Amino acid sequence: MQTDEQAIRQLAATWQSATTAGDVDTVLSLMTDDVVFLLPGRAPMNKSEFASLSRPAGNTPMPKIIGNQKIKEIQVSGDWAFMWSELSVTVTPADNSKTIERAGHTLTVLQRVNGKWLLARDANLLTLVQR
Amino acid sequence: MQTDEQAIRQLAATWQSATTAGDVDTVLSLMTDDVVFLLPGRAPMNKSEFASLSRPAGNTPMPKIIGNQKIKEIQVSGDWAFMWSELSVTVTPADNSKTIERAGHTLTVLQRVNGKWLLARDANLLTLVQR
Repeated sequence: MQTDEQAIRQLAATWQSATTAGDVDTVLSLMTDDVVFLLPGRAPMNKSEFASLSRPAGNTPMPKIIGNQKIKEIQVSGDWAFMWSELSVTVTPADNSKTIERAGHTLTVLQRVNGKWLLARDANLLTLVQR
Repeated sequence: MQTDEQAIRQLAATWQSATTAGDVDTVLSLMTDDVVFLLPGRAPMNKSEFASLSRPAGNTPMPKIIGNQKIKEIQVSGDWAFMWSELSVTVTPADNSKTIERAGHTLTVLQRVNGKWLLARDANLLTLVQR
């Protein structure tokens, strides 16, 4: 029997591996329908906007996205939880041109829906790493 | 009898008014001892670092800080809660030289400690507003 914290760590690991695999459907299955993504300098993003941004237009090949997440804290209270992470993400276009790295912290609210932990609100504070 | 949501709204209002009044002690009384402030492009900040930044060095007069907070959502679960806000903050130096405005969103985790709601984790996604 998994603890809540183990289930949330598994969710985070699946998120990263599905993102790297370009498996957008799996990533979308890990969030609530009313999910909100907060990022600096732009309007909050909902689930359909996240889906659109994750799927390149037309025949554009998917970039390779590799996330390296260190979970700093998980707190669970009933059907809600939060997770603080240190995260770096590298994005490399399919043609292997310039890799972009963003790094920083995230603060994520999770919700248990029908027994399954899902990402519900996410504040992403990553900034571009200058090389 | 205040509901939890009312108490959290009151906390947010007191935070803004104490900040504008330059009442650093009151602001510090509204957060847990293990509070963590997350901001883009810098290391997480703890309570003593927050206190140092809030108190100008030597005889430097306090700037005037005015926050305009729209609470978008509050969720309470046991002794933990989260709050999503849209926030703009203007900072005007005591000599009334150039006012700087930052705007964006915050995602805040609150904790009830000895019956009192306190700010526990705060992700601040505000960015400079170009004029």
